[in-house]
Amino acid sequence: MTSLQLSAKEEMVERFLDAAAQGDLTQVSMLLSHAPSLINQTGYSGWTALMLAARNGHYHVVKALLSDGCDKFSVNSSSQTAFDIAKFWGHRHISDFLGRTDDGCQRVLPGSDLNQCENYFSRETLDRLSEKRTDKVWLEARQSDPDTVYLLFSNLSPMVSSSQEDDNAGAETKLCRFRYEAVKDLLQEPATVLIFLGVEKRNKPSSSSSSSQTEEGVQEPPAWFAIGTDEDAAGLLKRCREKNCSFPKSPNRDLLKFNEEEAGVVAQARSVLAWHSRYSFCPTCGSSTKLEEGGYKRGCLNSDCRSLKGVHNTCYPRVDPVVIMLVIHPDGNQCLLGRKKIFPAGMFSCLAGFVEPGEAIEEAVRREVEEESGVKVGPVQYVSCQPWPMPSNIMIGCLAVAISTDIKVDENEIEEARWFPRQQVIDSLLRRAPPAFTVPPRQTIAHQLIRHWIGMNSNL
Amino acid sequence: MTSLQLSAKEEMVERFLDAAAQGDLTQVSMLLSHAPSLINQTGYSGWTALMLAARNGHYHVVKALLSDGCDKFSVNSSSQTAFDIAKFWGHRHISDFLGRTDDGCQRVLPGSDLNQCENYFSRETLDRLSEKRTDKVWLEARQSDPDTVYLLFSNLSPMVSSSQEDDNAGAETKLCRFRYEAVKDLLQEPATVLIFLGVEKRNKPSSSSSSSQTEEGVQEPPAWFAIGTDEDAAGLLKRCREKNCSFPKSPNRDLLKFNEEEAGVVAQARSVLAWHSRYSFCPTCGSSTKLEEGGYKRGCLNSDCRSLKGVHNTCYPRVDPVVIMLVIHPDGNQCLLGRKKIFPAGMFSCLAGFVEPGEAIEEAVRREVEEESGVKVGPVQYVSCQPWPMPSNIMIGCLAVAISTDIKVDENEIEEARWFPRQQVIDSLLRRAPPAFTVPPRQTIAHQLIRHWIGMNSNL
Repeated sequence: MTSLQLSAKEEMVERFLDAAAQGDLTQVSMLLSHAPSLINQTGYSGWTALMLAARNGHYHVVKALLSDGCDKFSVNSSSQTAFDIAKFWGHRHISDFLGRTDDGCQRVLPGSDLNQCENYFSRETLDRLSEKRTDKVWLEARQSDPDTVYLLFSNLSPMVSSSQEDDNAGAETKLCRFRYEAVKDLLQEPATVLIFLGVEKRNKPSSSSSSSQTEEGVQEPPAWFAIGTDEDAAGLLKRCREKNCSFPKSPNRDLLKFNEEEAGVVAQARSVLAWHSRYSFCPTCGSSTKLEEGGYKRGCLNSDCRSLKGVHNTCYPRVDPVVIMLVIHPDGNQCLLGRKKIFPAGMFSCLAGFVEPGEAIEEAVRREVEEESGVKVGPVQYVSCQPWPMPSNIMIGCLAVAISTDIKVDENEIEEARWFPRQQVIDSLLRRAPPAFTVPPRQTIAHQLIRHWIGMNSNL
Repeated sequence: MTSLQLSAKEEMVERFLDAAAQGDLTQVSMLLSHAPSLINQTGYSGWTALMLAARNGHYHVVKALLSDGCDKFSVNSSSQTAFDIAKFWGHRHISDFLGRTDDGCQRVLPGSDLNQCENYFSRETLDRLSEKRTDKVWLEARQSDPDTVYLLFSNLSPMVSSSQEDDNAGAETKLCRFRYEAVKDLLQEPATVLIFLGVEKRNKPSSSSSSSQTEEGVQEPPAWFAIGTDEDAAGLLKRCREKNCSFPKSPNRDLLKFNEEEAGVVAQARSVLAWHSRYSFCPTCGSSTKLEEGGYKRGCLNSDCRSLKGVHNTCYPRVDPVVIMLVIHPDGNQCLLGRKKIFPAGMFSCLAGFVEPGEAIEEAVRREVEEESGVKVGPVQYVSCQPWPMPSNIMIGCLAVAISTDIKVDENEIEEARWFPRQQVIDSLLRRAPPAFTVPPRQTIAHQLIRHWIGMNSNL
């Protein structure tokens, strides 16, 4: 609470949020009847009344807020929904209630946890419109459309605008967006790679004619393209006459600073560009290849090549499936985390590894855990996944239950692995000083798997 | 029941199975007390007493059989466990009971369905021992070991032995296994590709020294290798002097005829060999490459190549993630199936498609369903996965709930898509004549997804 004078409206929001936090249903209802717009107001760190009630276990307040139409999907500044918060704090009746969907989906898929975690890099704000990739006329028309958005990548690094607090790890990075006029010269250069990313999704279509083709006169939503070039960053910045812009050099850190919408676009663009940068030649015959289908295909230029007969994966972008797993001790109260030498000091994370040819996800989990830590794993449960564009992985996140506990680390893979008690993990997530170790940042699926485990059956 | 005279033992087995099927606990217990070995005996189509009791909903018999130590993991000739059967027939209290594990795993992972479906091509009978792939001395010693098993592939087709009923679709195919002496000449040929598959898993280690290295004098389990060659099949057959052997030509059909153990080995071997056959050249610079690390790496022969600096996916086998999904109608009682022109007449299956770069599994499900059928999807739930070695996919099987129902087929992808009522699907699974359509064979994850949906909440 600030000591400055609050406006009447701010004061009412504070009272409303306090009432929700304290479970004072009478007060919540009274304030809402006077001012219905209070319902989705946020206070400190973006917390809504629903989140505060969920945090403190006030089931009746949660129920009343929902029946009054509050937005249960809004997130606070840590990207948590009220459901996440209820789950984390062990208020299971509330998380179960918030997890219910309104359209009967839980009836259709019983036993499912329908509130799937949306991981960083996962949000799709564009409709990829893959059927347009082969429509050259349409693609060319969209390229020169004045509404079209271009993103620029130099050596797989996106051009971003730097805020004043750029050295602050918490500062948000924004993609620089260009119009056709600014990039049309660059598009002519032979080394330029152009990827069609999609068109902006229309959140609420004004007409219900979902089955009709786009007709003449109907405004199409803006298209997005990514431009990849090897031109050095300085030259590119100069050419674009952009100030306060840069090409960040450390993808594993700098690509985690976007908002959720831009992160999804970066994941798509960077993965496809990374494929082009590594797959310029036909792996089947060694000839040069050319970019086709809006950037989603590379065709061999040798007309005798076997890759041109039938459909071959050599011509399409590569996506590498990786398993990443939180291994739970048989006692249910410890989890196995490991660290690589390259990790920041004190950080431990989930074990992970590539899925091999001919291997099921669950088997890959068991093999990788045993190889890296010597621990044997029984049941495996899929939790959620995350695209990881360094260069183009799909991280498949699982919980796994250990059936042995002795640790024997493969020192080629990891430096150390340890069983961490639940309480130490909670302290680390809450950054209670001094934590025994640090968890990976919230943008990683490793962090989300750890939170999922803690939230799942703890009663803090 | 045969009309021929049964032996006394056969007669007792029949009485025991009948008692279990009819829920006659007194009779079951009495017979078991006289002849404990009855407990895992099988009757028609490999059904055990446990399966029959589970089929007919006799909870007390199921419980008694389990507490008397019967094997709940045995499968009938349709590869169903008692758990599968109880689930299929909607006896939820029994499937829940059979689904319990003895080691407290359900406590550790609440809410999980721990009886994961093991799909065809998923079973791992070999320990891949990936750490040995870089140990040339060890690999060479194992190659010439007289216990080592070699499998032969010609143009990605494994050499199999044909039984008399080879033209019968139900006949089981067996891999031809060779010893070092039979293949040592072939190993010298330059076009031969040799893959280390792993060593046989020891089901029950005799000592508990899991952390000790293999010591002198300790017999190591047999190693398995796959040999890939372009030599024509006739020449290879002649060279190996094998009779009744062949290289089947239709992978999508012929590779589905192995038992579960061999299917898993075939999935691994064929996927890696398919990678070698398509990725002979470095995609980064177009140079030739050489096989390394027991067949799990191809290194560029151009010493200036960027792929030699750091770790690049160009050097490692490719695995393509594919989503395959059963879409459930919002009413919960119909599912969406489609057919491609190449399908056998009358067959409908789940929709499927490749995961794209920068795309989450759940998003790929939504995109593919909408692209192929025009149907919009809301919640998505992972069910199980299946390696599919044509050439090297990992099929990620999901249930998905539709939030729209109008179908508009993309005719480039599929010929037809339809909503099928639950009862029609059940009739098709049970092959009740005449079914409205046929489902894919049981070896496919599509079949298992359909079964999973039917078994999940039906009460037939």
